[in-house]
Amino acid sequence: MSSNSFGKLLTVTTFGESHGPAIGCVVDGCPPGLAIAPGDFREDLERRATGRSRYTSQRREADEVEILSGVYEGRTTGTPIALVIRNTDARSKDYNELADTFRPGHADYTYWQKYGIRDPRGGGRSSARETTMRVAAAVIAKKWLAERFGVRVRGHLAQIGELVPRTFEWGAVEANPFFWPDAAMVEELESYVNALRKSGDSVGARVTVVADGVPPGWGEPIYGKLDGELASALMSINAVKGVEIGAGFASVAQKGSEHRDEITLDGFLSNHAGGILGGISTGQSVVASIALKPTSSILIPGRSVNLAGEPVEVVTKGRHDPCVGIRATPIAEAMVALVLMDQALRHRAQCGDVGPVSPRIP
Amino acid sequence: MSSNSFGKLLTVTTFGESHGPAIGCVVDGCPPGLAIAPGDFREDLERRATGRSRYTSQRREADEVEILSGVYEGRTTGTPIALVIRNTDARSKDYNELADTFRPGHADYTYWQKYGIRDPRGGGRSSARETTMRVAAAVIAKKWLAERFGVRVRGHLAQIGELVPRTFEWGAVEANPFFWPDAAMVEELESYVNALRKSGDSVGARVTVVADGVPPGWGEPIYGKLDGELASALMSINAVKGVEIGAGFASVAQKGSEHRDEITLDGFLSNHAGGILGGISTGQSVVASIALKPTSSILIPGRSVNLAGEPVEVVTKGRHDPCVGIRATPIAEAMVALVLMDQALRHRAQCGDVGPVSPRIP
Amino acid sequence: MSSNSFGKLLTVTTFGESHGPAIGCVVDGCPPGLAIAPGDFREDLERRATGRSRYTSQRREADEVEILSGVYEGRTTGTPIALVIRNTDARSKDYNELADTFRPGHADYTYWQKYGIRDPRGGGRSSARETTMRVAAAVIAKKWLAERFGVRVRGHLAQIGELVPRTFEWGAVEANPFFWPDAAMVEELESYVNALRKSGDSVGARVTVVADGVPPGWGEPIYGKLDGELASALMSINAVKGVEIGAGFASVAQKGSEHRDEITLDGFLSNHAGGILGGISTGQSVVASIALKPTSSILIPGRSVNLAGEPVEVVTKGRHDPCVGIRATPIAEAMVALVLMDQALRHRAQCGDVGPVSPRIP
Amino acid sequence: MSSNSFGKLLTVTTFGESHGPAIGCVVDGCPPGLAIAPGDFREDLERRATGRSRYTSQRREADEVEILSGVYEGRTTGTPIALVIRNTDARSKDYNELADTFRPGHADYTYWQKYGIRDPRGGGRSSARETTMRVAAAVIAKKWLAERFGVRVRGHLAQIGELVPRTFEWGAVEANPFFWPDAAMVEELESYVNALRKSGDSVGARVTVVADGVPPGWGEPIYGKLDGELASALMSINAVKGVEIGAGFASVAQKGSEHRDEITLDGFLSNHAGGILGGISTGQSVVASIALKPTSSILIPGRSVNLAGEPVEVVTKGRHDPCVGIRATPIAEAMVALVLMDQALRHRAQCGDVGPVSPRIP
Repeated sequence: MSSNSFGKLLTVTTFGESHGPAIGCVVDGCPPGLAIAPGDFREDLERRATGRSRYTSQRREADEVEILSGVYEGRTTGTPIALVIRNTDARSKDYNELADTFRPGHADYTYWQKYGIRDPRGGGRSSARETTMRVAAAVIAKKWLAERFGVRVRGHLAQIGELVPRTFEWGAVEANPFFWPDAAMVEELESYVNALRKSGDSVGARVTVVADGVPPGWGEPIYGKLDGELASALMSINAVKGVEIGAGFASVAQKGSEHRDEITLDGFLSNHAGGILGGISTGQSVVASIALKPTSSILIPGRSVNLAGEPVEVVTKGRHDPCVGIRATPIAEAMVALVLMDQALRHRAQCGDVGPVSPRIP
Repeated sequence: MSSNSFGKLLTVTTFGESHGPAIGCVVDGCPPGLAIAPGDFREDLERRATGRSRYTSQRREADEVEILSGVYEGRTTGTPIALVIRNTDARSKDYNELADTFRPGHADYTYWQKYGIRDPRGGGRSSARETTMRVAAAVIAKKWLAERFGVRVRGHLAQIGELVPRTFEWGAVEANPFFWPDAAMVEELESYVNALRKSGDSVGARVTVVADGVPPGWGEPIYGKLDGELASALMSINAVKGVEIGAGFASVAQKGSEHRDEITLDGFLSNHAGGILGGISTGQSVVASIALKPTSSILIPGRSVNLAGEPVEVVTKGRHDPCVGIRATPIAEAMVALVLMDQALRHRAQCGDVGPVSPRIP
Repeated sequence: MSSNSFGKLLTVTTFGESHGPAIGCVVDGCPPGLAIAPGDFREDLERRATGRSRYTSQRREADEVEILSGVYEGRTTGTPIALVIRNTDARSKDYNELADTFRPGHADYTYWQKYGIRDPRGGGRSSARETTMRVAAAVIAKKWLAERFGVRVRGHLAQIGELVPRTFEWGAVEANPFFWPDAAMVEELESYVNALRKSGDSVGARVTVVADGVPPGWGEPIYGKLDGELASALMSINAVKGVEIGAGFASVAQKGSEHRDEITLDGFLSNHAGGILGGISTGQSVVASIALKPTSSILIPGRSVNLAGEPVEVVTKGRHDPCVGIRATPIAEAMVALVLMDQALRHRAQCGDVGPVSPRIP
Repeated sequence: MSSNSFGKLLTVTTFGESHGPAIGCVVDGCPPGLAIAPGDFREDLERRATGRSRYTSQRREADEVEILSGVYEGRTTGTPIALVIRNTDARSKDYNELADTFRPGHADYTYWQKYGIRDPRGGGRSSARETTMRVAAAVIAKKWLAERFGVRVRGHLAQIGELVPRTFEWGAVEANPFFWPDAAMVEELESYVNALRKSGDSVGARVTVVADGVPPGWGEPIYGKLDGELASALMSINAVKGVEIGAGFASVAQKGSEHRDEITLDGFLSNHAGGILGGISTGQSVVASIALKPTSSILIPGRSVNLAGEPVEVVTKGRHDPCVGIRATPIAEAMVALVLMDQALRHRAQCGDVGPVSPRIP
């Protein structure tokens, strides 16, 4: 069925393949009056871009956004906003030799089984190229959330392979190509990733996103809960194998007396809940983390099968990231922002100006 | 907005509060001709039931399912199937003393902020009582999946506090009240949970669900992926704080050469993917795990706030589980089964009899 | 697929068959705080009821509504409201002799072709009995619209066979069993319907619904327009074969200079638009009309075919209305009210407190 | 909320304004393997095009479709198909003098009230230019319906002002610029429309669409009925004020003995039902008609109000059709085709290969 739309009231429909003429999206349901200009998209698209540093894939796309509709004289009109980006650096010939091979760990085999037809150019629709449009769409959501509610959505890399930050500073995150919150470790990361690349292997990563300023009351029980929607949004990102809210899997070994976030008139005493209780925001920071698998596009040969049903050996020579998790940071932010804006509209639909009500925990 | 429905083509709408007259659901979109009898619901409802053993909450509900519609002469007709269960053991007075208190770790405060109105009886709509109807609805899904595709959905407890199974046998799982796959550890678990109860505390848990027999091709890219739908379905279960597919968060520290599941004509050589690539089933077992937080309904006093905005001390004296994760097992199975049936119908809608196609990995 | 839910943000899911144990609905998305009591449903259910007068079907149902959820201490809580009505006067044996016959003009044959299974008891799911729940659900919508916006939704019979009202008075409508706006014609109608009944035949009808007080701005271009949603809502009523907004089919022979509703600062000079332009309410009364076909359940024998594929002669002896259009009046009101409330919530979601803005036509 | 998508399983999302840089659509849910080429769109777009003859608006658009995604090597891949058409003949200056005026009978006032912002260029999003993308999307649906089921969807003008065809021949319809089924009347129509244009006035029209070859069983009770979906689809077309299925409003004056379509083993004896019973196709031709209002864009001055709240006199000098109903014919066909394909997929989702079953009426 039609499954390329995301969000209930702010609905983003994406289209396009990695090596097709263009990728794009339609953002439907945005309130009228929001100022949007083509330049607004640049920063986040660059943060996500392949080719941003030596540590990510070397495909270089201009990622120039054209606004085809929904904005008049610099403001949204309430009608659907269509954004298109032309693909300019799609080297399909890189993939020629893999055209008949099912790459392990990729969607080749499953798309083939599902559709009985296959676009082998760079993964086609299953490529992470699609996430460019999520980031573009989320620029609108981030802007609306910030202007209307003062919400700020930020992400950082929280683990790569076995490495975890030893200190944490938001200020450090945007100052290095790894979105790493510990400035002192950047050199170590560079060596790590360079060594990986040389070995022809890849590694997984963990990304954490924090949304500050979310008011209490967002989230739609029972099947549109804030955490439920975050989970599907984040899991839909390429290579994600796990999603956590707040304490996440650490909760398994916690005691109730430790995990519960006690409440005082000065605020909650902790945030194991990640800012969500019963599927509704508490007013604390919303915190979500994801696990990204290591890419299977590596130089180390592996066994596979081709279209003719013959065993083959696969080596992926394309331009790929040794750690796809690095540039997942802005993508994860994007999904969180899109979910939050959707939830804000859903809350307003049913509850209007109800809430926050007294007493309110600061 | 309306958010009490789950699933796109097989849609389950649940209703009812913990201490209201009844809970129920409407299952819409079920193919005609499936044999369904009231007795079919008994086993799974009992597996989920509170009061099943000394190790879970002592509320005892008959959980007698009445089929109000959609079944004629023992077979589904294709029209909506309404199921209702009367609440019979709702002791609302247990909650009287908490009527004005926001319990930490519960949805009390967030429902209040969202709706500006509150049903304090046993958590109202936010109670895990609602999950009874998910289990009931999933009985239909499990039956259809089994009859039509030979799919079998099973779950087990995979961790409780720090305890993990040392051996694994499906045969052991249903033979103890903990859904524990290591028979030799059951006594140890009993002591552990009894000690917890005595201490007035609670603990978290991990539950794993495995679906065998899922054919390749199920899953709807990009925003209706099988793993994305599983993530929101599982995250919507009360107390869940994390969801993993296959290797999950372990992927973070894995290398690509280790994680990728190599393919041979005799099958995949591993299943780190958890049976899903690109959001579509591979034909391997679909494996999902969840983290459940320890319940905050404990006897150890904690700080909170009441409706009047005064600081209070909270102790929860109701009938509660020291580990809510135990009976989450059948609930998690239910969500997986509902997602799978929905995906099967969605796949059929667009692709009809396409797939599986050659070559097919066994 | 699942198609028994109606409305996007106020979603009504109905279930139940004509001769099953019960019919019911779940109303999801209703704002919290609305006062609702079981007694609120009585009036409209009685207006719709079969057995209300000699001029409609003689089935007599108590139509006692039980509220199973979503209302606490007399007010909606924002959680799903489940309503159930037990069927008490279902005489299935009336239908025994038709169990194997496809009645012309009925859904027997098409349900059989669609589902390959059939519930022959009184039409099963396709029976107008289902509309009882639409009327019940709409009681909530009417109340909310009235309290929140002063909107009033009223309907009347506008034609029966060749008869049309010669005068129009809202006051007359509820004073006769035909919802007829011309008091002087009631006796004539009685004779007409009695004669019809004696002849064993039936006749069609036209019903008009008027909603006063709808503010400008409701309606969701392009595919959720107010008129588009009214059209599907009204067409979904049993026996409806046509829907008109404002001048409707009379527009075909109108000139633009006649049809356009000129605007002055004192108001619009006419209402051929039926209160809707570009799919959005203008602030004038919203006016919709429907055509209802004559029921095929008549005593005059007709040709048909049975399950065995043999030609048969059909005579319908059950308790049926000579003019099903008469009691369609409250059903049509119900659908208009449900659409309006849904549109109000949809408008609020995207546009919040935007509108009405200056200049506003009174 | 987001309301620019149409269809449940075959979902068409349109975007773009009359005088923006481009219009476009995303067709999501199309089965894989359907052959689609850019040239396939030409014929129907030309049939719809403004500027096709002297009898319609003189805006001349190339309407060149670019396929941005979803088609690989000439076949659909199952991923979203994005189509874009650049606007090339948008003379916005034609509208400058109306920029501050609310045109009677147009969406100017209602968009202003809804969104508090306004794109005055040619009606912006509310322009019939949007329907171009419906016709483009429906080319895909028509092709799939024809190839897979032999379904053929055709429309014709059935009335213009007081003129109705005296004879009927499908062969005549495409041979004149009015889609008129009576070749002998074409000259009369030409004079009629020329006279209208000279008088500066406009007139309404009726369009009928017939779908042959629809198998029994399509349609989703209760709220996704075939007739209900047709009603909203057709009512969503600009200027439509009424929708009829089969006998439509003529049913009001019919007797049951006349209206019911008796059944024999050789077929139904009539088709007052328009091929739909209980919301499901019968296997007869599906017949739907619409009423289109006369455009309010006329040269005859009319009263209105401007943004400053002052009374003004309006004369519309743009390039407009004296009868917008004429080119509504391919648009109405498009909506019927899109609904039918959506229903075919929905039927397949739930019922798979059920139906048609025996006995089947030919």
